Parts: sequence; structure tokens; C-alpha cells
Amino acid sequence: MAATRRPGRNHLFVPGPTNIPDRVQRAMIVPSEDHRSVDFPTLTKPLFEETKAVFGSTEGTIFLFPASGTGIWESALTNTLHRGDTVLTSRFGQFSHLWIDMAQRLGLNVIVQEEEWGTGANPQRIEEALRADTNHEIKAVMTVHNETATGVTSDIGAVRKAIDAAGHPALLFVDGVSSIGSLPFYADEWKVDCAIAGSQKGLMLPAGLGVICVSQKALKAAESSSGPNDRLAHVYFDWADHQKQNGAGYFPYTPALPLLYGLREALACLREEGLENVYHRHAVLAEATRQAVAAWGLKTCAKEAKWNSDTVTAILVPEGIDAAAIIKHAFVRYNLALGAGLSQVAGKVFRIGHVGDLNELSLLGAIAGAEMAMLDNGVKVQPGSGVAAASSYLRENPLAKS
Amino acid sequence: MAATRRPGRNHLFVPGPTNIPDRVQRAMIVPSEDHRSVDFPTLTKPLFEETKAVFGSTEGTIFLFPASGTGIWESALTNTLHRGDTVLTSRFGQFSHLWIDMAQRLGLNVIVQEEEWGTGANPQRIEEALRADTNHEIKAVMTVHNETATGVTSDIGAVRKAIDAAGHPALLFVDGVSSIGSLPFYADEWKVDCAIAGSQKGLMLPAGLGVICVSQKALKAAESSSGPNDRLAHVYFDWADHQKQNGAGYFPYTPALPLLYGLREALACLREEGLENVYHRHAVLAEATRQAVAAWGLKTCAKEAKWNSDTVTAILVPEGIDAAAIIKHAFVRYNLALGAGLSQVAGKVFRIGHVGDLNELSLLGAIAGAEMAMLDNGVKVQPGSGVAAASSYLRENPLAKS
Amino acid sequence: MAATRRPGRNHLFVPGPTNIPDRVQRAMIVPSEDHRSVDFPTLTKPLFEETKAVFGSTEGTIFLFPASGTGIWESALTNTLHRGDTVLTSRFGQFSHLWIDMAQRLGLNVIVQEEEWGTGANPQRIEEALRADTNHEIKAVMTVHNETATGVTSDIGAVRKAIDAAGHPALLFVDGVSSIGSLPFYADEWKVDCAIAGSQKGLMLPAGLGVICVSQKALKAAESSSGPNDRLAHVYFDWADHQKQNGAGYFPYTPALPLLYGLREALACLREEGLENVYHRHAVLAEATRQAVAAWGLKTCAKEAKWNSDTVTAILVPEGIDAAAIIKHAFVRYNLALGAGLSQVAGKVFRIGHVGDLNELSLLGAIAGAEMAMLDNGVKVQPGSGVAAASSYLRENPLAKS
Amino acid sequence: MAATRRPGRNHLFVPGPTNIPDRVQRAMIVPSEDHRSVDFPTLTKPLFEETKAVFGSTEGTIFLFPASGTGIWESALTNTLHRGDTVLTSRFGQFSHLWIDMAQRLGLNVIVQEEEWGTGANPQRIEEALRADTNHEIKAVMTVHNETATGVTSDIGAVRKAIDAAGHPALLFVDGVSSIGSLPFYADEWKVDCAIAGSQKGLMLPAGLGVICVSQKALKAAESSSGPNDRLAHVYFDWADHQKQNGAGYFPYTPALPLLYGLREALACLREEGLENVYHRHAVLAEATRQAVAAWGLKTCAKEAKWNSDTVTAILVPEGIDAAAIIKHAFVRYNLALGAGLSQVAGKVFRIGHVGDLNELSLLGAIAGAEMAMLDNGVKVQPGSGVAAASSYLRENPLAKS
Repeated sequence: MAATRRPGRNHLFVPGPTNIPDRVQRAMIVPSEDHRSVDFPTLTKPLFEETKAVFGSTEGTIFLFPASGTGIWESALTNTLHRGDTVLTSRFGQFSHLWIDMAQRLGLNVIVQEEEWGTGANPQRIEEALRADTNHEIKAVMTVHNETATGVTSDIGAVRKAIDAAGHPALLFVDGVSSIGSLPFYADEWKVDCAIAGSQKGLMLPAGLGVICVSQKALKAAESSSGPNDRLAHVYFDWADHQKQNGAGYFPYTPALPLLYGLREALACLREEGLENVYHRHAVLAEATRQAVAAWGLKTCAKEAKWNSDTVTAILVPEGIDAAAIIKHAFVRYNLALGAGLSQVAGKVFRIGHVGDLNELSLLGAIAGAEMAMLDNGVKVQPGSGVAAASSYLRENPLAKS
Repeated sequence: MAATRRPGRNHLFVPGPTNIPDRVQRAMIVPSEDHRSVDFPTLTKPLFEETKAVFGSTEGTIFLFPASGTGIWESALTNTLHRGDTVLTSRFGQFSHLWIDMAQRLGLNVIVQEEEWGTGANPQRIEEALRADTNHEIKAVMTVHNETATGVTSDIGAVRKAIDAAGHPALLFVDGVSSIGSLPFYADEWKVDCAIAGSQKGLMLPAGLGVICVSQKALKAAESSSGPNDRLAHVYFDWADHQKQNGAGYFPYTPALPLLYGLREALACLREEGLENVYHRHAVLAEATRQAVAAWGLKTCAKEAKWNSDTVTAILVPEGIDAAAIIKHAFVRYNLALGAGLSQVAGKVFRIGHVGDLNELSLLGAIAGAEMAMLDNGVKVQPGSGVAAASSYLRENPLAKS
Repeated sequence: MAATRRPGRNHLFVPGPTNIPDRVQRAMIVPSEDHRSVDFPTLTKPLFEETKAVFGSTEGTIFLFPASGTGIWESALTNTLHRGDTVLTSRFGQFSHLWIDMAQRLGLNVIVQEEEWGTGANPQRIEEALRADTNHEIKAVMTVHNETATGVTSDIGAVRKAIDAAGHPALLFVDGVSSIGSLPFYADEWKVDCAIAGSQKGLMLPAGLGVICVSQKALKAAESSSGPNDRLAHVYFDWADHQKQNGAGYFPYTPALPLLYGLREALACLREEGLENVYHRHAVLAEATRQAVAAWGLKTCAKEAKWNSDTVTAILVPEGIDAAAIIKHAFVRYNLALGAGLSQVAGKVFRIGHVGDLNELSLLGAIAGAEMAMLDNGVKVQPGSGVAAASSYLRENPLAKS
Repeated sequence: MAATRRPGRNHLFVPGPTNIPDRVQRAMIVPSEDHRSVDFPTLTKPLFEETKAVFGSTEGTIFLFPASGTGIWESALTNTLHRGDTVLTSRFGQFSHLWIDMAQRLGLNVIVQEEEWGTGANPQRIEEALRADTNHEIKAVMTVHNETATGVTSDIGAVRKAIDAAGHPALLFVDGVSSIGSLPFYADEWKVDCAIAGSQKGLMLPAGLGVICVSQKALKAAESSSGPNDRLAHVYFDWADHQKQNGAGYFPYTPALPLLYGLREALACLREEGLENVYHRHAVLAEATRQAVAAWGLKTCAKEAKWNSDTVTAILVPEGIDAAAIIKHAFVRYNLALGAGLSQVAGKVFRIGHVGDLNELSLLGAIAGAEMAMLDNGVKVQPGSGVAAASSYLRENPLAKS
């Protein structure tokens, strides 16, 4: 985009959008076609089935929308809830905040449990709140699985246990935009009612395809929410319209065709690598990143190891240093895109995304670049220390589990 | 998609999605990038300006959503109107019907003027209805510019005159999904408050980018609709969130990147050909198609010449012939995708789209194919007659005006 | 390429380069890679086997050169022959002429049998010449299978019979550049010693990959020609260098990588359609073209039906008409690329290529375009007559045999 | 290519083929077109002019062949020389060896000056040999500018001075396959008569386009070599055939179309970065690599700093270590393609190519990977030391000169 050509590739280490594998890129180069043709379902019908795997589901129903993940947040809320309904949720970062903001603006009554940034959803507090809700006013629990702003992963299994322990019928909505396809996710086992994914993270596609995996319980809630007066107005994201068409392989309106072809190929990539290997790889690359951070003598935004996200690491810069300056310098000088600190942690952290289609040497290049950008901006780290620590770890820990 | 390879290209003559020019296809093959980078606005900022040209606007504001045109319908309604507001509209085909259905499901009070399929919006009736609405209960007039189901184009200039003649303050919303970028469209001159376009028609892109051109008056209405209680709940399609970010070249959530690059190239294509030439070309190809229909001895769905759409021609098959069988046969036997008849005209018409990036010989191939498919299905047309008539017209009428 | 954008696609009906199927186009979009890597042979080794099918061979050896077909002509001659060797050949068009010119310039003694343009190789004369060559001075018979300049196909099976009938040991070299992959070709059955193909015709790739299928007999001749003094100097096109590397899946120098990936996909296309269906399709499209020519009241350059080429038809324009003007007009006005008349037939013919990845409606578009260009240039043909005749034939004759 | 998917990109650090910039990759995705059309010269004619810049020439003539660099070696020799002519050259690596082998097999009398591997052409010895050749038997001096096998660059300016000092009329042929477009090259200033380039190195394209820049003196020699009897037989690589067509923008046979479009874009890339910046960037990345080698305590194959190549560094592994094992391990375990040792240095060196479209972090990733592969194979280097040294150098030395 720059006026003068910058040589070589851009090193993309934001926590999404992620790198698109060549074969997925190729798969999306398709001519236009009639999405009502007799051939079209041979593309689409398998997608509705095969996409479930990345959600850890066999029982769910997949809906595919031409939309970003934000739209799918809205789809979950508007299909299942009524105006004025109460939902329970935790705020511990920018994305959990934005989802709360949406819920409020849609007219829901949102009970917010504030958690310290750098931690995640607190199952115990959730259980307490649900136990206290003896009238079952709370219709849904909303949880962000992986808070990209702080590099924190919440324990959805524990949230489920909390709901069950409270014996509460609330639906469970999980934002898995930056986790699904990268971190272990078990929608069926965790009884997630709406699991929300975007295309531009673990699915290794451009943004523009919103994916949701919906439980039978949520589908039922959607039916009962269809009364005209108090429902949350929506048509574009309506599940029922899609259900009518999806069974035969069609959509109620024109789908984003290249992304459907891309999804098919991305799912094949994940299948060929093996989802367990994919999860393991993310864990290994994340730990290598954290080894580098430790070698630099810096701290992550995540308060404890249990909160560590395996898709993104938020790194606290020393007092007196402007993380934003490091990020800008990394981009302009070294063609390295790091994630910025947002809101509460703006200027205090930079983030290294290690999500999607990535391997050791790409990550080591980014670690080297982050180190150089820090050094250039006055952070006293030992040159080469980050790569030394990360590479030693990576030598010992292959990316593939099997 | 078929199990066995079918040689040669698919001849795509549905009225959208349309053929993607090679250079636009190429432009969309981009690596992922950080949509918050310092470079990103060099891509996006010109788009907000340059896109206005295809709407015939210099004063409007462009919003770009990762969505289909259906979503943009919703964006127009939910940003400007309140629950229970009254809107006036006309129904004369499947797409005008679907928009009405959406408005009703969103909780609006919709006054529907039924017009015969094959005709379009009736300015006189609109004027009458507005004159009768002395309390100005009607907040907006919704009109589909080009009804693809029947191949009919309504006269938006006349609708505007009707509103003005009635001295009514209603907003004017126009669905230009299958007209904008192909048919003359003058949002400023016609004072269209929301002009709605999709990417997959005249913009020659895949579906997935919804575009709306909003007037100052509509922006103002959006502000006043932002009260919490009676507004039509929406966040994803909210203009205000976009306005906050668009000025600096950013978006409130991850945009559909390839489509933005594609849009830049598609606009360049339209500019290089010249919009007046683009409109003229569509008129010439459409008239050539109608010449073929006449030579076949058949009639179009459009009742009078004044209703003729220059982006799609709906052709009535003789009594006793199943148009659906012709369409299926054309696809399976000749790799030709024709548009189906929908709803009221299902089985009675097939449609030839002549919209987007197209020239004479492609159209003549499709006309030949439609003729063959008709002959194979018992329609008695003179072999070669359609191409003879269309090609004679095309020899006399160059595609470029200048 | 033009300064102002021309809408729609270019209709490519030269007899090569031919249209590249989308999936082949996609397959060629590959990053650079190390052509000495341990993975590389998984791409290349199957190519050496699978390419034989289009030559009708199981016993031959395939060599793949980064070169045009012209280079492969040179490869055949320089690997097997010595300076001053005598070869026998026929001239009946521009391409047979150019191959003769090459042989002469390489220092061979070329016995040329002149045949009327519009006919092809004469097996009887060949037999006579070989019988007369009792000393076996003639080392090779060179024949152009499909002379694209005139739209004539020679009968290679008959040439083989002529050689056998004469009991002559000469090698048989066949230029199959515009036939292999499109017309029936049986290298083993016909005992073709060097069968020469380019990538840009029946293989549906861009130019740049030269392919040769070499018999055991020719390989043996190549060994004996390797003496230093009188051999035809060559290194780039040397088979022995390739043989040393190809077995393990490598090349003596850097190969044209995208074309190798493209070849793999193109072979898959041909396999999926079925070679017999591919040949049948070319025959049907060719006959449809000839039906159009007859309906126009024009004649082909091929003197008799037995000479008709099924990959290209050369059409004689009436006296007083300049074929070159028609061709230029077709290109400029209708975006239709027709083949020009060359040498003896320059200005007298235009050529419609019907080779490669093509189906009915594309051809009918071209026939319509040729007709319009003729009419615009004063050729009195009946409007629509070509398409009427061709489409009637095509309705009766499906492209797929099975 | 592997049966199981390997995540992330392949890190390509062989000294060619090199990484293809995204925009060049895009530019090559073109439909087939008629290479005899009236539009075609608008693509080709500028190429013949603009390509000269990378050769440092305004006076030369460019020829473009569908071929690898090996073919262009042959083109230089066969167009200008006669059978039995004497040429003078130096051997100091695998590629200088192969060119000598070709010259001998073509029937030339080759005087070889053996130089130690790790050094290059010796201008003093060349001058002596030329002075001794009082009869001017030597028709040409052949020099490999950049010997990729050993990472050695010869001083072509000094070779020119040697020839001039000897007052000898020999032609000067320079293999610039791995230097042109990456290292300073001044064909006019150095009076190089044949400067030979391939597409897959500094030109950042796939292999398959051979480029030669020919002086007026060499063109004259080519004319005089065209006598029929003693010339080196050649047609495919004949300059005169090309000269006849190139002037009007055409070729004597079908060109490799995608590569021509790619060349246009690659030249634009080089122009936008600025050739001086391109050369500077290669120097900086090369020196960073050598800093890493020094930090590892290892030696390069180049004997003295003056021989250092700025496009490839050949690194000697310690006694008892098999460099081939390191290379294989780097590829299989870390998806890193390093260059192998060839011939005399097989098993003794591995090579890091730093040529083409490359920036700091990509190189640092490769240095990290090479280090890991060495450590895994028993080479005792300090973890992180290579990246520490290289990154410190890179922080001080920006890639762009201006």
C-alpha cells in the first residue's frame, strides 16, 4: 500500500486475520456461479456437516452467514432472546466488553461480572449468580472463550460445570472467534448452545464468513422467540430462514461464494493435519513465545499460567515505554504487524498472535522482530535472547503430536 | 462440481451473481493483513469517496458491510425507523415481496400497494397515498428499482416527483441491488435517502460486500432513532459505529478484505469504461435480447416497453411448457445458467441476465443456448432466429457510446 | 491491454494458445520451491508416467522442457541425427514449412515432398521415396500431424504403414503440437519415434512447456549420435542429461514450476473427461463448425473431407474479400480472436480454432461473431445461418460419447 | 506435496528459485490470448526496453526465450561462435563447470583456467592468456559473475580491464543468472557482449523465461556466424529470428505468456524500490548472514571478503559433520529449504540464499532455522548467537539506501 515498494513479505502477527494457506487462497479463486443451480448443493451440503468437527460437535446445527464474527454475536442473541431478557456475563477485556455493549444496545438486561483484565470468566461467581437467580430470570450466560485483548483463555468446561452445579436452565453462548479451529473446543461435551466463530482466525480464511454452531436447545429457544411483539428484530441473521434452505444445500440470499470454497479447503487442511495436532501446535508455538518473553525479562498480561492463551500473547512493556511506539516501529521498519493494546491496556502491551497457519521459523522471525523493535525503542532486552529461548524450546517440542 | 468433468466454461446468465473480470479476480488474491495498520487507510479512504460515483452521488455517505444485499435492506430500515413506524411500498415481484416481508418481521407497519407482476412502482398511487397521509405517519417509501424476478425497472425519478408533489417528508429507500453500476442511477438528483447495492451484480464482485449510500437526511433520522426503547435493535449494521471509524479509514470490526481490494479494481473498471458507456452497453445488450425474444415469437414478462429492465429479461414460455425444465436442461446439457421463475411466475418464465461484465458474443452464445434448450423442450422457435435478430441489432449498435 | 477498457471476455478462437480451465489456472499459482528438495519427486515422478496417456503410449519416455514446441522440434532432430543426415518430409502448410526450414538450417539434407496446401502427407509418395532409398540414407520421416495453417490432419497410421510397407528403418517424427490431447493419437500403435507436443493446445496450459514422447528406438539412435564430431550440437535439449535426473524426479536445470503443477491438473482434467470423450468432443465441435461454413456457402481450405482437422477450420473467404480485414475487425469490434491466414493463404482464409477446453455455446458465440465480422466486411452470408446449422447439429450430437 | 499437511509456509532459502512477490504472482494469472493480436505489442514492446535497466544497459538488445538460464548459455555460444572456435574461461565452482561442459559438448575448444573453489575469475591470468594469444584465436571470454555453488562473486569490471589491457578483441560473455537484478551489473560500462539472466532469481519470477542482453558487437558476430557449414547448429535460440519479429512486438513462436506479464510487474517492483536500493538491500542482508556465520564460529566457502557473494552464502560445516544431513533435517523438521553443497563441496557446505524479494525477519527466521538444524545435527553453536549478531547488524543498517 505504501507509495514506495517495501521488499519481502509482511509478517502478520496480529491475532487475526491470520495467514491464508496457499491452497486455501487458490481454492477461493472461483468464477461466479448460480447459487440456485442443481450442482450447487454438492459444494454446500458437506460444509454443514464437516464444519461441526472444529466445534467439537456432531449434534449441533451449523449456520453460515456472509458476516464478521460481530454479526454472529448478534445472531446468537437475536434468535434466542426477547427484548428485556436478562443475561449474565463477565467482562475482562475489550472483546468481552464489546459483546456486552451489543447486548445492552439490543435491549437486553446484562448482569456484568467485572473480572480483572488478565484473568477470565470466574466459574464460581457464575455459579453463585445462577444459584441466586431462583426465578430463572437469566436466560443466557455469555462467555468469551479467548479474550484476544489480554491473551487470556477462559475455562468453558468449568463454566458449564458451574451452570450445571447451579441447576440453572440458562443457555450458554460462547464467543470462540479466536479459539475455534485453534484451541480445543468441545461444543457437545460442554453443552455450548451457541458457539460463535469467524473465518479469519483458526479457519485461516479472510474475514466475511460468520459461522455458528447451534444446539437443539437453542434452536428451540429460537422458535419460541419468534413471537412478533417482544422479539429482538432481525431477519438477515435469522436461523429459520436458513434452516428452510440449508437442508437442500441452498441459502435464503446470495452467499459469499469464494469463502464457501475456501472453507471446504480450510477444513481439509485441518483434517489432514489432524485437529489434535493443530491444537498441540498452537500450544507449542504459544509456549515458545512465552519462553521468549521470560528470557526478555518481561511479563504477560495474563496474570497466571492458567489464563495463558495459546493463540495470542499480550506482553507488558516496562514502565515508561510506549507499546504503541514499538508496534508502529515494528510495522514501518521491519514489516511486522503486532497487535496493539486496547482500551485499559492501550500503550501498555503489544501482542503477538500465534494463531492459524504458522510454523516455527515464521514465529522466530517475529520474535526477532519484536526484540529489535523493543531495542530500537529503549527496552533493554538481551539481543538474541528471545530467539535463543524460543528455539531451544521448539527444538525439544515438535509441532506435530503424532 | 459434477463428478465427471464438464468441458469448457459455465455460461452464467442469471441476473447475478455476475461474471468477475479477470483483473478484479486477480485484485482479490491478497494475503491477510492487519486492518488496523497505519497503511490500511490508503486502501480504504478512497473507496468511501469513489464508490459514490456508481450511485450518482457526491453528497451521500457510503457504508460498506460484510453482508449480502439483504443485510443492507435491514441496515436501511433499522438505522432510520422505529418499531411500529409506517412505511409505504409497492409489491410487483419476488424481491419487492421479500423486502416487505422483512419490514413486517422487523415490526414495521407496511402499507403495500399491489401492482401487477410485469409492471412496477406506480408514482401516481404513491402520490395519492402520501397526499392522504396528512399526519405524516409514513416515515419512508421503499421501492425496488429493478425487480429481477420479472425483468422490470421502476422509474425512481417519477417516484421522487410523486413524493415532492405530495409535499411529503418521507424518506426514500431504493433497492438498487440489480441496477446500481448497470443502469443509470442518480441518488443525489432523485434525493434517494438510502440507496442499496450488493457486490455481486453491477459491481462485478462475489457476493459478500453490502454497500449503501445514505443521504444527510437519513443520517439525521438515524441519530433520532437511537433512543433506546423503541428503536429497531441493531448493532452489526449500525451506521454510527462505522461513521466513528470510517473517517480514519478503519472499520468497527474486521472487514472482508479481498472484497475491498476487488471493489477498488471494479470501480477502476467502471471508470475506465465510463459509466455512461456502461449504461449504454447494458441497454444495447438488453435490446438485443429483446430482439431475439421477438424473433422467437415469445413475450417478456414486462407488460410494456417502459417497464423493460436492461439488466434482465424474463421470457414467458408458451402454455403447456415447463420453464423449469428448460432451465434445468440448459444447465445440464449446455452448461448455461438461466434464471428461474420465482413465486407467481415459477415455471412460466426463464430469465436471461445481461448484467455486469459482458459483451456481444457471450450474449449470443447464451441466446443460442436458450434457443436450443427451448427446442429440446418442445418450444417451436425457428433455429437461429434469436441470434439472427440479436446479432443484426448488435451490428448496428456498438456497445460503447463514445 | 487497450488504453480504454473493453468489457467482457476475449473470445479466443485461434488454434492455440487455448483457454486454460479455471482449475488448471489455479493449480499454477504456486510459491517457488526448491526443485532439489526431497518432496519434489512426489510432484514430478507421476508426470513422466501419466503424460504418456495423451500420446497413446505406455512404452515411450517422456521429456519435459522449458520451451515452446519449436524447441521440441529441435530436440527431436538434434538428439537423433547427425550433421548431413537425410530426412524425408512433406510440405503442405506454414508449420510443415517451418520445420523443414529448421532441419535445413540445422544442417540436415531434407527431401521435401511438396503437397498441395489443403491436403496433407501422402503415404503413397512416402512409401515410394523410401522404397527408392535402398541404401537407407533417409534417417527419419518428419510429418506434421495437424497443419494448423490450413486445417488439415494427416493420417499418421497410413504413414506408418507406408514406412513398414517399404521395409525401411527410418525413424518417424511427428509434430503433434496441435493434435496431441485433442485428436486421437497412438504413438505406440503407430510406432512414432518422436511425438512432439506443446503445452498451449490440447494440454490447455500456457506455452512454455515442451513435451516429447520418445521411443526406445529413438533413444538408441540418440546414444549413437553422441559422438563428438558430427553430431548436431545441443545441450539444452539433450535427452541424456534429462534421463540421468528424471528417474529420481529431478531435472538437469530449473524447471518451469507452475507449468508442471498445471500439467498435473490438466492431465487430471483429461482423465476425468475421458480421452475418448475429449476426442469425440473435438470431432463434434469441428463438424458443427463445418456445418456453419457450409450454411454460409463458403469452403474450407481442406480440399476433401478426409483432410478435415478437428482442432481448426480454415475458411476461404470469397474472391475480393480481405480475410485479414475480417480478422482485425472481429478482434477490435467483437473481442473475437480468429486465426490469420499464413504465407500462401494469407488474406484468403481466416481460421476458427476449436481446440482445448471448449463447449457448444462458446463455439456458437464465435460462429456468430465470425458471421458478423464477415457481414460487416461485405461477405454476403445469411444472418444467423451459421449458428442455425451448427446448433442444429450440436443438439443432435452430445459432446460426451458416454 | 507431503501426504500429511505441514503447517505454515516453506521457508525458501536456496539461491533460486526465489520468492515471488504477491503482486507478481497475481500479474501472471492471465487468460490465454492471441500472441499475434493487434493489442499484443502494447505488452511486449516496453519489455524489450525496460528490461535493459537491470542489465545496466541502454545500448544492448534484449531477447526473451521460453527457457531456463542453461538455454541462454547455449544461445550466447551458438549465435556467435563457430564449431571449433576457442574460448577462454575460468572454473571455480559447479556452475562455471557446467558452462564449460556445455561449451565442450557444443564442439568449442575451451581453455580452462582452474581457480580454487572459493575464489573467482582471475583478471591477471585472463590478461596473460589473452596477451599470449597473439593470433586472436580466442573468440570469447566466458565468466560466471556469481558462482552460486560457493557463494563467490567475480569482478567483471576487472575482467573487462584485463581484456582491454591485453588489447584483445574477444567477446565477453557473462553468466549473470544469480546476480542480475540483485547485484550491481553494468553491461554497457563493462562492455559485456552477452549478459545472461534467468527469471527465477533477481527477477523474482518462476523459471522458464531466459533473458539475454546482447551488445552490437555480439550481434555482428552472430551475423558472420550464420554461414551454413561451420556454425553451431541452432534455430530455437536464434537471435535473428527474434530480431525479425521483436521490433513489431511479436515472437517467432508462442511465448510463455504468464512470464511476460510477470516480467512487466517484476520490473515495476524493481523500479519502485529503486535498483540502487535493491543492490544495497542484498548487500545488507548478505552481511547480516555473514555476521551470523561469524557468531557461530564458522567459515564461509569464499576464501576472502572480496569474493563474498551478496546473493548466497556457502557455509562450511565443521569436520565430521555431514552438511547434507543438516539440509535434509532443516527441510523435513523446520520447513526450511537450504542450498546443498555441490560436487567438490558436497556434504561440506550448506548454503543460505539471500536473493530476490526478501527482508530482515524472513532472513532471521532462516538463520534461526539453520542454527537449530545445526544444533540438532551436532554442530556446537551458541543458541541464538546467529540471530543476535545478524539482528544487531540489521538494526544499524536499514535495507533502503534512500
